[in-house]
Amino acid sequence: MSSQAEHDLTLIPGPIEFDDQVLNAMSHPTVAHTAKPFVSTFSQVLKSLRTLFFSKDPKAQAFVIAGSGTLGWDIVSSNLIEAGENALVLNTGYFSDSFADCLGVYGAKVDQLRAPIGDRPGLNEIEAALKSKNYKIITITHVDTSTGVLSDIKAISEVVHKVSPDTLVVVDGVCSVGVEEIRFDDWGLDFVLSASQKAIGAPAGLSISFASARALATVESRKTPVASYFASLLRWAPIMRAYESDKPAYFATPAVQNVYALHEALRQITSGGESAIVERFKVHQHASDRVKDTVEGLGLKLVAVRRDIAAHGMSAVYLPEGVQNTDLLPWFLKHKVVLAGGIHKEIATKYFRIGHMGVSVTNPSLGHLDKILTLLPEAIKSAKN
Amino acid sequence: MSSQAEHDLTLIPGPIEFDDQVLNAMSHPTVAHTAKPFVSTFSQVLKSLRTLFFSKDPKAQAFVIAGSGTLGWDIVSSNLIEAGENALVLNTGYFSDSFADCLGVYGAKVDQLRAPIGDRPGLNEIEAALKSKNYKIITITHVDTSTGVLSDIKAISEVVHKVSPDTLVVVDGVCSVGVEEIRFDDWGLDFVLSASQKAIGAPAGLSISFASARALATVESRKTPVASYFASLLRWAPIMRAYESDKPAYFATPAVQNVYALHEALRQITSGGESAIVERFKVHQHASDRVKDTVEGLGLKLVAVRRDIAAHGMSAVYLPEGVQNTDLLPWFLKHKVVLAGGIHKEIATKYFRIGHMGVSVTNPSLGHLDKILTLLPEAIKSAKN
Repeated sequence: MSSQAEHDLTLIPGPIEFDDQVLNAMSHPTVAHTAKPFVSTFSQVLKSLRTLFFSKDPKAQAFVIAGSGTLGWDIVSSNLIEAGENALVLNTGYFSDSFADCLGVYGAKVDQLRAPIGDRPGLNEIEAALKSKNYKIITITHVDTSTGVLSDIKAISEVVHKVSPDTLVVVDGVCSVGVEEIRFDDWGLDFVLSASQKAIGAPAGLSISFASARALATVESRKTPVASYFASLLRWAPIMRAYESDKPAYFATPAVQNVYALHEALRQITSGGESAIVERFKVHQHASDRVKDTVEGLGLKLVAVRRDIAAHGMSAVYLPEGVQNTDLLPWFLKHKVVLAGGIHKEIATKYFRIGHMGVSVTNPSLGHLDKILTLLPEAIKSAKN
Repeated sequence: MSSQAEHDLTLIPGPIEFDDQVLNAMSHPTVAHTAKPFVSTFSQVLKSLRTLFFSKDPKAQAFVIAGSGTLGWDIVSSNLIEAGENALVLNTGYFSDSFADCLGVYGAKVDQLRAPIGDRPGLNEIEAALKSKNYKIITITHVDTSTGVLSDIKAISEVVHKVSPDTLVVVDGVCSVGVEEIRFDDWGLDFVLSASQKAIGAPAGLSISFASARALATVESRKTPVASYFASLLRWAPIMRAYESDKPAYFATPAVQNVYALHEALRQITSGGESAIVERFKVHQHASDRVKDTVEGLGLKLVAVRRDIAAHGMSAVYLPEGVQNTDLLPWFLKHKVVLAGGIHKEIATKYFRIGHMGVSVTNPSLGHLDKILTLLPEAIKSAKN
């Protein structure tokens, strides 16, 4: 393995810093994608995702497919909704906009409930929208990485089940799975899409999702064919079921080494069972509070309008008057720390982002969080001059 | 890095055996996908693909996207052809069938020229088909991994340019790029799709393709929108152009570690320039002859009906009378060698496949080829008893 010692500390909202053992697993020697050792590893990955999502429903199914997180939007848009049907997109930033774009590509009629920047649509507003029209799906960006706003998917799902029970509840969990609580069955969710490189803590390259029995039944009973080949849940479902029951199957070659890395990452998260996962969420909440206390202590403002709607795996922070990212980020880079600039179109130059997920949070001996919290005051002071 | 010493020798038509340095690169410490060191690496990857394809046209463009090889079919089917337009699929096996399926999902009207198993459609037949109808694209599976049949893409492209010059020439090069000669500009090709885990020699997880200026202009002048979001060349083209000119850009998070591994694999293939690439093809041809001489010397028959239409990176071989894959493959497994069974529906149980690509061929000191050629006679004898 390449030495991790020398590299710049990367605290962005993904890809995150990786554990040594996870990175080691990336260089696993070749294994046929149908050979027993790999099949068994993939089976464990799919099973551990049930644990991660607190799901006990045997008819729900995890999907792990080679691709970026973005592929998850295509999976939703080409499988769970048909051209001409209505989608309600709860918009909390850049990534909600893109999800809406993707839905449109596959012919969905998209309505957006757009919150002011840093806020999220209210439950009353969501209820009213759901009553106004038949929506096939509602999409919620659990954490919009462009604003750091956290949505209350449990409360939203309750509203959906109350006023529009046939609407599928779809969650973009790219920046939330592994750091924010998601009780898939209990909360009545239908589809959560995510990716490997954020709070799950494995290198980028895997689209990870979890579908309810109801979501899969919806795909099976479509009036029109699934609108994608590679992203078709109908093609992938038998493959995932086979691998999970320790049998090889083939539709497209899985990213073998990435799956080994994901296996190690998920082993670390789920081997302690549900209580360890709950503890993991708490540790991230505590770390998030430390970061947010520090930035607010410096007189900086979060993009999220209130602390209780801010994500726990990242912080989007407005720059102080007179400070530019073109000053701040290079200053950090000189100190061998990589932070992220803004990505929300309307405020891109006005804020920066810090990622605090995975080993950087759960393994304090690495000193990642201490380093950034020590550097922040100095950085702001220096950039102001 | 996990030790490579102990693992089963995997000689299947991909994923292949990987070089140590390529595997080392897979465990590269995290780097932001927009950070300078990664941008520079990705730039070199995109440039070296021009070398690999012998392309000098600055308006042609390489694409490297997180995904399986299969994603390449979606890229073609959702970008280069519109619903209702005609596609001519030259069918040389299972993978041609699947490509045709994928085209159909996106609404293409597909005609297939289906060769008998082990053969390929004749040039006269292709010419007649092209004259019978306006075809937007013709697809050729360069090497169909299910039969080991090699298509003559140069000759076919000549016919296309002669009798149907507006038809885009699309090559499925999943099992050919890096082992079979492909002169992209000289042969008038429009699109070659491939994947990382075969003759290119990097772990699975990357869809790799190369598009002509004409192919890109076709996408830009579509009457209907591109039929996919994640597979849209319109969305990816500016990203690839930016990275290649050493600027970060964002559409979806690239598989950072896989790109580092691909960088090392392509460095090894292309750093000696075109002459080294030509030499690489010769070395593979020689290795292929050794394998095929040995199997024919044992009285076994290739699935490919003639040696001159057989692929050079793999061999599909009929089992002798009375021998089953359920005997042969476990025998090899006991000797710590993994070969592949059949995959072509009509003959799946009647043949097996050997992969001979990449380091297993180019680095004789590993002894991979010697091992399989020594074991083969013993295996056949043992399986017959």
